[in-house]
Amino acid sequence: MTAIGKTRWAIAEGYIPSESTGPAPALTSHETMCFLNASDQDAQITITIFYEDRDPVGPYRLTVPARRTSHMRFNDLKDPEPIPRDTNYAALVESDVPVVAQHTRLDSRQAELALLSTIAFPG
Amino acid sequence: MTAIGKTRWAIAEGYIPSESTGPAPALTSHETMCFLNASDQDAQITITIFYEDRDPVGPYRLTVPARRTSHMRFNDLKDPEPIPRDTNYAALVESDVPVVAQHTRLDSRQAELALLSTIAFPG
Amino acid sequence: MTAIGKTRWAIAEGYIPSESTGPAPALTSHETMCFLNASDQDAQITITIFYEDRDPVGPYRLTVPARRTSHMRFNDLKDPEPIPRDTNYAALVESDVPVVAQHTRLDSRQAELALLSTIAFPG
Amino acid sequence: MTAIGKTRWAIAEGYIPSESTGPAPALTSHETMCFLNASDQDAQITITIFYEDRDPVGPYRLTVPARRTSHMRFNDLKDPEPIPRDTNYAALVESDVPVVAQHTRLDSRQAELALLSTIAFPG
Repeated sequence: MTAIGKTRWAIAEGYIPSESTGPAPALTSHETMCFLNASDQDAQITITIFYEDRDPVGPYRLTVPARRTSHMRFNDLKDPEPIPRDTNYAALVESDVPVVAQHTRLDSRQAELALLSTIAFPG
Repeated sequence: MTAIGKTRWAIAEGYIPSESTGPAPALTSHETMCFLNASDQDAQITITIFYEDRDPVGPYRLTVPARRTSHMRFNDLKDPEPIPRDTNYAALVESDVPVVAQHTRLDSRQAELALLSTIAFPG
Repeated sequence: MTAIGKTRWAIAEGYIPSESTGPAPALTSHETMCFLNASDQDAQITITIFYEDRDPVGPYRLTVPARRTSHMRFNDLKDPEPIPRDTNYAALVESDVPVVAQHTRLDSRQAELALLSTIAFPG
Repeated sequence: MTAIGKTRWAIAEGYIPSESTGPAPALTSHETMCFLNASDQDAQITITIFYEDRDPVGPYRLTVPARRTSHMRFNDLKDPEPIPRDTNYAALVESDVPVVAQHTRLDSRQAELALLSTIAFPG
């Protein structure tokens, strides 16, 4: 299958609320970067997290296998360090093969969930 | 009328919640790919669904007639197989004439609905 | 000021819920095409509405003055005919000067509002 | 680190609700332009606000330091003048180095918040 997408993506809006309502993990407040790797090669992905008041942190590493999607929760990033909650961040994604990246937040701070999503910016 | 759009589109975020609140089918939790075929030719569209842990499934086939829109619910795809609920997926769309593709989720797992939408990624 | 944008835009998702909760007109369920005309010339805009099961309707005509924004509610279109509620549609926008077009729905069918928005597809 | 993004961005949808529910400032109704400056140079940014019925206002000035994100609330703009609440606006952003711009609204007019977000239009 032909690859689709780009090798660099960015989102500028990042924020993981510390509070949640409803059953975990489905309704835990979270932000996701969803990847589609439609190519026949595994994608080696590195993510750099930017903050408002300190140096960027990374790289975080992730493999998205060939012909697979991966919905990566920013909440789950651990190495080199977790992303703090209730903190503004941004993310730069670099991949060795073209992928598609889409950003989503499920926000359950209040009793009823809210959602946002956008295709990330292809650089 | 002149065609507008592209012949390949992708979304990386796909997830159909199994639970819903409110009258069906309008408020059933669903994800949609909305197509606009502004051209004077019918569009023959094929959709491939990607998963996190198994091979892609498809093609699903759909015709969007000339000068028509079609709001296709991923919930309704049946052949070759339905998309399981509560499961992460992604979608690649290929068309023989240029179309515009926009992705939407209506999520009514909780009492009050949430919405997301984005123009898909044109490949 | 230099113009920014494109002269053709499309959205594929269109749907105006017939039901609303909360004070009108702010919280009436509605869909909007928001225009930015940053140029020094008035923009003459035509809109064509596409349906699933009948021929497109239009042109609807709108002027966005130079150096102005206009947030046009699809609910308010009247000539040549209103857009029916609870009906899937799509929209093609053509302008004689470059503008930016962004699509939004405020959905208040249930007690708590939901929102979606995306930059339209530039053709 | 290599810069990513563009030097001009626009959003056409702008609206800051005057009413809010929930603890301030996190759940105050607000609109944000989130910036990512992944480059090694500080970004000098100017913002022009467009209205439906009067001349544009600006420039508003903002610095996004090298290798930082900044989530700027439109609510907080003061110089040359605040953006009035419950008023349609649009925004044009110009930067001297490439940045990524993403637009978000958190709307808490009703008891449960709603969210929208989209990558802005790169000009």
